[in-house]
Amino acid sequence: MLDATTAVETLTIDDMRAAHERIRPHIRRTPVLQSEFLNELTGAELFFKCENLQEAGAFKVRGACNAVFGLSEEMAAAGVCTHSSGNHALSLSYAAGRRGIPCNVVMPRTAPQAKKDAVRRYGGIITECEPSTSSREAVFAEVQARTGGEFVHPYNDPRVIAGQATCSAELLEQTGGLDAVVAPIGGGGMISGTCLTLSNLSPETAIYAAEPEQADDAARSFRAGHIIADDAPETIADGLKVPLKENTWHFVSRFVTDVQTASEQEIIDAMKLTWKTLRVVMEPSSAVPLATILRNRDIYAGRRVGVIITGGNVDLDRLPWMVG
Amino acid sequence: MLDATTAVETLTIDDMRAAHERIRPHIRRTPVLQSEFLNELTGAELFFKCENLQEAGAFKVRGACNAVFGLSEEMAAAGVCTHSSGNHALSLSYAAGRRGIPCNVVMPRTAPQAKKDAVRRYGGIITECEPSTSSREAVFAEVQARTGGEFVHPYNDPRVIAGQATCSAELLEQTGGLDAVVAPIGGGGMISGTCLTLSNLSPETAIYAAEPEQADDAARSFRAGHIIADDAPETIADGLKVPLKENTWHFVSRFVTDVQTASEQEIIDAMKLTWKTLRVVMEPSSAVPLATILRNRDIYAGRRVGVIITGGNVDLDRLPWMVG
Repeated sequence: MLDATTAVETLTIDDMRAAHERIRPHIRRTPVLQSEFLNELTGAELFFKCENLQEAGAFKVRGACNAVFGLSEEMAAAGVCTHSSGNHALSLSYAAGRRGIPCNVVMPRTAPQAKKDAVRRYGGIITECEPSTSSREAVFAEVQARTGGEFVHPYNDPRVIAGQATCSAELLEQTGGLDAVVAPIGGGGMISGTCLTLSNLSPETAIYAAEPEQADDAARSFRAGHIIADDAPETIADGLKVPLKENTWHFVSRFVTDVQTASEQEIIDAMKLTWKTLRVVMEPSSAVPLATILRNRDIYAGRRVGVIITGGNVDLDRLPWMVG
Repeated sequence: MLDATTAVETLTIDDMRAAHERIRPHIRRTPVLQSEFLNELTGAELFFKCENLQEAGAFKVRGACNAVFGLSEEMAAAGVCTHSSGNHALSLSYAAGRRGIPCNVVMPRTAPQAKKDAVRRYGGIITECEPSTSSREAVFAEVQARTGGEFVHPYNDPRVIAGQATCSAELLEQTGGLDAVVAPIGGGGMISGTCLTLSNLSPETAIYAAEPEQADDAARSFRAGHIIADDAPETIADGLKVPLKENTWHFVSRFVTDVQTASEQEIIDAMKLTWKTLRVVMEPSSAVPLATILRNRDIYAGRRVGVIITGGNVDLDRLPWMVG
């Protein structure tokens, strides 16, 4: 059984398969959508894996459920805890709620009210911190010490990575094979899971990571050959601000074909285009892959390309094209 | 083989089945989505059939494809024609394009530019008329005479009704059975198809039609026992302004359990709620069913309820909650 300290080098495709069996009752097999318009526009055949239609609106329930349902009864009794201002907080609350164990989440007091409301709706217990790394770490240490809950990191955790890996396994089954897969990269959890699955089940499939130009630490890390962490990047793709960590760097450095970037305007344009043509609600982070595909048409033209739409939690009152 | 003059009284479930075989290569088997949040809110178990994720963004491709692909080679040569400012224009253009025959559409010059652009993208040929019934009829008569194209009415056509009927056949298969189905009602094409399928395959399933309070001609017709047509109803649910006709009245008067209405504000609230919780883009007309379910919780609580989301063509720059 995996735990938080399992060396990611030892993860195998059987860990992905075990995760899939474990989480299947708690997640959705999300649909794969296509658009003739977007195919014509890009020259590629695009297959959009809609994790925005996943439980809790994000792929992160896969990893969260794998961590939560993999705990022994004894460990589960004390519950789980994490820090996150976004989809991981929602997803871990959802998973813990399904198992009926406590979930403590440290969130910055500045996090959107809608996100806080959603965490509470899933039964998560919020402790607020100041929006700084030092405050978050101090408050989280206190919460963890007090509750004794198992820490489930948003991405730097082998259980989480094995859970995220189930997404591209479904995508392969649903499409019958792909020449390339493009997914957003922030901390690298989804990309790492994608690498685990594809490097084993479909090693000929290229893996592209898509990143905002204004938070391009993964692209720079990839070229430098070691992790470079940005201090406080600013991008509309708020799910992608966090840096790589050692467990995700393992996969990114070994299996990713390239890290491609897109500008803020390209991300907004791709987001609106997807809402219009695929007719799904997705967050800015999820638009980065299409933005990079449109910027690199020559690479993707004529190929069968999987695109992972990672999440759909967005403030409908503050859509980027409503501003200005 | 059905034609435009087939008496709807003679339509059978085999006509639906033949339609399904005929259109299968040209349509999508759209996904059925669920939301635990909406289930808790309504007390019902809701199954949303997402025809907004259909080709051309609307269920209307089902009827349009059935009409177009049912034409003899000889009839098909002259193409098809219709009048519509909305999803039927898109859908018929799509269907004709798939068969490689001309499609002439009479649209009011005031129709949204985005709709006109989409019709042209699918290869439809637009002739503009003034936004009045008299102008539309005069211009349409001229276009039909000039092209000799087969007229495919948006809903008052047995071929179209048999095509729309395939939607609830899929919904039954995908859910394994339902206590009730709720669909929007405008001209009554979708509701008529739903009646054709359910009265044959699942006669115990109740059929509710959902209508804007401000365009409640179907509700008043249903209570009066004969068609009442409104002159120029005003509602945000712009797909539901058209009146019933004899072919759809046949089904509505015989098989519909009730026609329920919702206010403009209830429709907008239900639309935003669906975008937020199901994370799909849908037009105001498609929100009317959920609005009526929320208004009539006592009827739906504890039941398995299919909800047909009819379309997803909406102007992202003019969302109703952006105004005011």
